Amino acid sequence: MRDVAVIGVGLSEWGELWKRSLREIFVDAASAAIADAGVDRIDSMYVGCMSGGLFVGQEHLASLLSDYLGVASIPACRVESACASGGVAFRQGYIEVASGMNDVVLVGGVEKMTDVGGDGATYALATAADQEYEVYHGVTFPGLYAMMANEHMSRFGTTREQLAHVAVKNHRHGAMNPKAQYPFEVTVEGVLKSVLVADPLRILDCSPITDGAAAAVLCPLDMAKKLSKKPIVRVVGSGHSTDSIALHDREDLTELAATKRAAEKAYKMAEVGPAEISFAEVHDCFTIAEICVIEALGLVERGKGGTAAESGLTALGGRIPVNTSGGLKSKGHPVGCTGIAQIVELTEQLRGESGKRQVKGAKRGLAQNMGGTGGSTTVHILEVE
Amino acid sequence: MRDVAVIGVGLSEWGELWKRSLREIFVDAASAAIADAGVDRIDSMYVGCMSGGLFVGQEHLASLLSDYLGVASIPACRVESACASGGVAFRQGYIEVASGMNDVVLVGGVEKMTDVGGDGATYALATAADQEYEVYHGVTFPGLYAMMANEHMSRFGTTREQLAHVAVKNHRHGAMNPKAQYPFEVTVEGVLKSVLVADPLRILDCSPITDGAAAAVLCPLDMAKKLSKKPIVRVVGSGHSTDSIALHDREDLTELAATKRAAEKAYKMAEVGPAEISFAEVHDCFTIAEICVIEALGLVERGKGGTAAESGLTALGGRIPVNTSGGLKSKGHPVGCTGIAQIVELTEQLRGESGKRQVKGAKRGLAQNMGGTGGSTTVHILEVE
Repeated sequence: MRDVAVIGVGLSEWGELWKRSLREIFVDAASAAIADAGVDRIDSMYVGCMSGGLFVGQEHLASLLSDYLGVASIPACRVESACASGGVAFRQGYIEVASGMNDVVLVGGVEKMTDVGGDGATYALATAADQEYEVYHGVTFPGLYAMMANEHMSRFGTTREQLAHVAVKNHRHGAMNPKAQYPFEVTVEGVLKSVLVADPLRILDCSPITDGAAAAVLCPLDMAKKLSKKPIVRVVGSGHSTDSIALHDREDLTELAATKRAAEKAYKMAEVGPAEISFAEVHDCFTIAEICVIEALGLVERGKGGTAAESGLTALGGRIPVNTSGGLKSKGHPVGCTGIAQIVELTEQLRGESGKRQVKGAKRGLAQNMGGTGGSTTVHILEVE
Repeated sequence: MRDVAVIGVGLSEWGELWKRSLREIFVDAASAAIADAGVDRIDSMYVGCMSGGLFVGQEHLASLLSDYLGVASIPACRVESACASGGVAFRQGYIEVASGMNDVVLVGGVEKMTDVGGDGATYALATAADQEYEVYHGVTFPGLYAMMANEHMSRFGTTREQLAHVAVKNHRHGAMNPKAQYPFEVTVEGVLKSVLVADPLRILDCSPITDGAAAAVLCPLDMAKKLSKKPIVRVVGSGHSTDSIALHDREDLTELAATKRAAEKAYKMAEVGPAEISFAEVHDCFTIAEICVIEALGLVERGKGGTAAESGLTALGGRIPVNTSGGLKSKGHPVGCTGIAQIVELTEQLRGESGKRQVKGAKRGLAQNMGGTGGSTTVHILEVE
């Protein structure tokens, strides 16, 4: 397999973009990534999108988006793995470049979520859970993650305040990100007093509904060295794993087994361990998710995830900064796009382009992206040469 | 890139399966393919599905289906490219094995279309066209293909009877296929007298709405030679291309440019031309589609597609048998599954397992699968060693 580099990244505007269509925001992000890469061609394309069908009544994004990007004729493919669609798109692009099938591969993610309103979005998102055995019985995602939170609190003594600290940290980071959907700070008291969604989770424990797109350009490492004037960011690890889709089928509600397995593969491939990761972007769709994820990644010990944000360990300036972009919580969570947006943050951090939220001496970043309650997960490790 | 072989194939029951769920029929097909391959493990999986969201309210099939197949923990990914989803899933599996990332890769396709009824299915299928510039203005797929048919008739003198001959031929083939949804023969008169759908297309020019699943197991050629007791079927060519999603953006309504480009790539890779293909499975979602496709593949001259079925050229026993399985027309068209079902037919023909519809001396088969009105296309060439 060939070595692969990320040579360009880009984001569209993020937020409630009622005047812009899915194809427009995708082209914004893709054009930005192509310009950043400085390439004059795209050989192949992958697009992560969770549900074009339910959110905007449009499938066949491979054709639509290659067409509107002006590259119709190339091989293009939409991939879906619920909220891990972006991570999976990145992995497919990585495999294609590594295989030698094509050289310059665009990987993008897009979701236009706000057109269907709150009920429509809740229905569409619930299709990431097991419809027949979970959703038809009344549970949606805040309820599922609430069960994980209650179990973590009861078993490991994680406190309600510790959950809040995850939101406080990520909003503090997001306030330094000009692209964030909610670039304001929140307080522990603010989180605790916000509207209850599914006990113990409150509205400020939840990531928002977001319209947005992100893109990255991949190519062989050798080509990147010739082509790029920027620091070379290399893909050194890729892991992908699945787990039972229904939460009730898991042996342990608080252990994200797919994340654990995907991380093991990525670490092994990169020949590093958790201690050698400079910073990470992880899937904080709910505050409890970040806590379970950093445990599964081995960034903290099992059961100790609750104290990480509270103690400053995962804050900018801490031992292992997590979600410097603001995470899904503050930056926003256009579901199929999130995994690629994490790669954008990793790449900019590794190149030293993150301004106020720059991680000093960032050498190696990890991105973890998951679907549903962890039924599918990708982990990627990027390193600056 | 490593050489890749198909070592197992399987189909579920096809038809209007109101008592069976998407997960069940997928597991049927995948289990059959795994048993046929004789493997004791699956390293990775791709599933083609056009719209789990709109047809059954279920996305995140990577997690759901790896879970219900009993292999949750492996990397699994759903791919979508409308009715070309199966072909794209096959290509992704091929690239993954060729890359060296994993060895034993299951590629499947599934669609459960009948649960939403006719209107629901028409809406879901229309999401393969450009919603904003085509569908919102009232056109659906029979209307789009009718425009292609009218143009082909007016430009090349193709007759209404010649369209009917495509249906007659494919139903004659399908009548020999125990798996076909509509295994009955039709006559030219029967087609011409059937209900008008979109002038000139009648109901017997259209492929049906089908529930069904198909699967294939891929592995490196070297491993297949050690493992398999059956004739070794090798993937010798893979092409994938896109075109404008909206029909009105094409320079020529009757030329399937994406099919032409995908075929050129596949022929080049296989180092063969159209004359060296023994038989083909092509995307006859409407009778006119088969006519345009065989022209784009170079199996017949441009403008001569209309006479091919009428003259017997593309019938079993003809120079280049097309759709020996019965095609989408008679075998059925579970949209995201079709591309994999074509691979099943190719593999069985190449192994000499096709019974009454066996192509004598079948050495090299071609599968062409397309989305929308040809906005995305895959072409694969398989060869028996």
